[in-house]
Amino acid sequence: MKEKSGLTIEIIAVGSEFLTPYYQDTNSLYLTSQLNDLGLKVSYKSIVGDEYNSLLSCFRNALDRSDMIFVIGGLGPTTDDITRETFAKALGREMEFKNEIFKDIKKRFQKRKIDMAPSNKRQAFIIKGSEVIENKAGSAPGLWIDNTKNIIVLLPGPPVEMKAVFESQVLPRIKKYKAGFRIHKTLKMTGITESRTESLISDLYPDSPGINMTLLAYPGQIEIHLSSHSPVSLEKSSEKVNPILEKIKKRLEKYIFSENGEELEEVIGRLLSENRKTVSTAESCTGGLLGHRITNVPGSSQYYLQGFQVYSNEAKVKLLGIDKAVIEKKGAVSSEVAKRMAEEVRRKSKSDFGLAITGIAGPSGGTSDKPVGLVFTALSWDNGVKVEKNHFLGNRSTIKFRSTQKAMNMLRRYILFQEKD
Amino acid sequence: MKEKSGLTIEIIAVGSEFLTPYYQDTNSLYLTSQLNDLGLKVSYKSIVGDEYNSLLSCFRNALDRSDMIFVIGGLGPTTDDITRETFAKALGREMEFKNEIFKDIKKRFQKRKIDMAPSNKRQAFIIKGSEVIENKAGSAPGLWIDNTKNIIVLLPGPPVEMKAVFESQVLPRIKKYKAGFRIHKTLKMTGITESRTESLISDLYPDSPGINMTLLAYPGQIEIHLSSHSPVSLEKSSEKVNPILEKIKKRLEKYIFSENGEELEEVIGRLLSENRKTVSTAESCTGGLLGHRITNVPGSSQYYLQGFQVYSNEAKVKLLGIDKAVIEKKGAVSSEVAKRMAEEVRRKSKSDFGLAITGIAGPSGGTSDKPVGLVFTALSWDNGVKVEKNHFLGNRSTIKFRSTQKAMNMLRRYILFQEKD
Repeated sequence: MKEKSGLTIEIIAVGSEFLTPYYQDTNSLYLTSQLNDLGLKVSYKSIVGDEYNSLLSCFRNALDRSDMIFVIGGLGPTTDDITRETFAKALGREMEFKNEIFKDIKKRFQKRKIDMAPSNKRQAFIIKGSEVIENKAGSAPGLWIDNTKNIIVLLPGPPVEMKAVFESQVLPRIKKYKAGFRIHKTLKMTGITESRTESLISDLYPDSPGINMTLLAYPGQIEIHLSSHSPVSLEKSSEKVNPILEKIKKRLEKYIFSENGEELEEVIGRLLSENRKTVSTAESCTGGLLGHRITNVPGSSQYYLQGFQVYSNEAKVKLLGIDKAVIEKKGAVSSEVAKRMAEEVRRKSKSDFGLAITGIAGPSGGTSDKPVGLVFTALSWDNGVKVEKNHFLGNRSTIKFRSTQKAMNMLRRYILFQEKD
Repeated sequence: MKEKSGLTIEIIAVGSEFLTPYYQDTNSLYLTSQLNDLGLKVSYKSIVGDEYNSLLSCFRNALDRSDMIFVIGGLGPTTDDITRETFAKALGREMEFKNEIFKDIKKRFQKRKIDMAPSNKRQAFIIKGSEVIENKAGSAPGLWIDNTKNIIVLLPGPPVEMKAVFESQVLPRIKKYKAGFRIHKTLKMTGITESRTESLISDLYPDSPGINMTLLAYPGQIEIHLSSHSPVSLEKSSEKVNPILEKIKKRLEKYIFSENGEELEEVIGRLLSENRKTVSTAESCTGGLLGHRITNVPGSSQYYLQGFQVYSNEAKVKLLGIDKAVIEKKGAVSSEVAKRMAEEVRRKSKSDFGLAITGIAGPSGGTSDKPVGLVFTALSWDNGVKVEKNHFLGNRSTIKFRSTQKAMNMLRRYILFQEKD
């Protein structure tokens, strides 16, 4: 195995809670991302409960097949936490008591003026021959073991402690295994389907080693993840990925809203700030999600003035002055009402732009004429207004989300490309 | 291992994407929940890429240590998908071509009027001696293998297909391994911290076999999951869990908002509907999240009339008629402004209740006097109004969420317990 792909790396998440339907191990995602940044790939992830036999089986497998093993969790003070002693057994080593650790733990408790439970003494036992990794964020120290065949790192389970210990103590130790230089680019898109994206770029999938392209599809958002790896330098890594990146950007230009991880609400926030423009919102079926997303961006008070959640027809009439006769004739979910909502909210708010959404989020309320998923999104500006008719698929929350993506994207495309119809 | 806990069960998720930071295996959560319902526990979860050597190592381990093995993914038509042939190798069996499957696959393509790629022929090869499990939701059939030592189930990776195949084809086959009767109860709470919950119920943690209690803490929400298992009957299972459940409910009564999985917005929706009452909202720092959450509930148009996202001070003055002098004197984030917002939105909307939120969601905008996380939530009714001052911890999105939890909980407690101050 080894000759082909460098180090074989395994992550083991310990905790019976991860074997229930309620918990998911997320530590390994962080760890994977950190390792990838060093050009290191993860080959196995294992999840196992706090049971002696299962743990022992997992650890023995790992020692047998993997060069570098990260074990996360099971270092706490309770009798459930048996990672240390079980790994000692798997290695055929003894445990030893470290008075320095015990003193540190006692000190932590004294500082916080809490009595130390006797069980905390267990945390002062380490695997013989291991190096203690300090944990400034909690009481359970990590352990580092290099037995020439394997490198074994035991890390605490709470994410905050795991990250703190990894960054300050483990990363410096494993930097020497850095397998090269990695670049990762994310293109986020909206307004295009997964299959259409696929068909437009399928010939670009790299088949050379060291480049990787992944397409991720979420409702209302498509992401292309491109990464490249070079043993030589970051520049060489860029040289690999850039030609593909440029081709993709050329082909999908208008759909791509960010290349640096920004969400759509951040992009429109930045565009509004840069152009010193303001926006206001009128929402029916989304009930406030559009305003919520816009105000998820710190500093949004600079460009977001106000919004109306005009859920009932009466609210549309009274708050926005939509003509009752129009609602009765065309229906609240209609191009005319969306258009008027966008115009009125802009006028009432004295904002540069008005965004409006009216539709049927379901699951009930649809008719053959106006089915669930029919949503009108509208954008108004100083001397015009634009409406789009959408048929969104999905459940209630997906339809709400897609509606806000569409509305924000209309604003983005107006500012960037002067799209008026 | 076997004598103690019945069958040893392992779930293996196959796919190189699960070894990146971007994807997480969620199929195993569904599968675990289904198995738990049969009284079966999962002992190991493994995640491995589509690489021959790694897969082989995983499969061999599993055959060695587990009685029942679920392998999810890698059954597709592309050359990456090598689960079938690798498992055959691990079992020491040959592959065989099944013309019936090939015909079925061809038929599927004809129906959809798409040309079949030659690679799809690969899906017609099965492990010798295995039973084909029909997949009505996709082209990759599953496989069932009983070699007397292990039961092995190969399932397709797309969640929709996996679920369809599991429910229709696998569940009926494994029902005979049912290890008893399981009951699962969820108590959802808000307005109480994790440590306070812990201290109020820590003496109730069950130490008898067959009962399990787990405390999950989210920002603004605590959940207690209680499950019990009996080999005899559902009634026996209930008898185990009910005494603990009743004690918990007695001690935490006012904090518990649901026992059946309902979210807080569903609970207040139900309470408003049952009492034929309506609500309207005025939001500053939450920017629409409260209205969004209320309207996440189907049928919410029955009780949610309208809302105002009064993000700017001017909006508070112009839309809700808050006295400019009060804002200048007390600040937009103040008890007085929250109170007036709740009163005015109720009056303007002619709703039975008004809910209002004003606060500092951060990360900037805080002062020593009014730090980030300071949020006033207010509830108004026909002849009164109530304001609460909160200091929420967390980042911007956590503070927004906690604010809406608090506001909705004030409404819940008013309706249920007539809490007016």
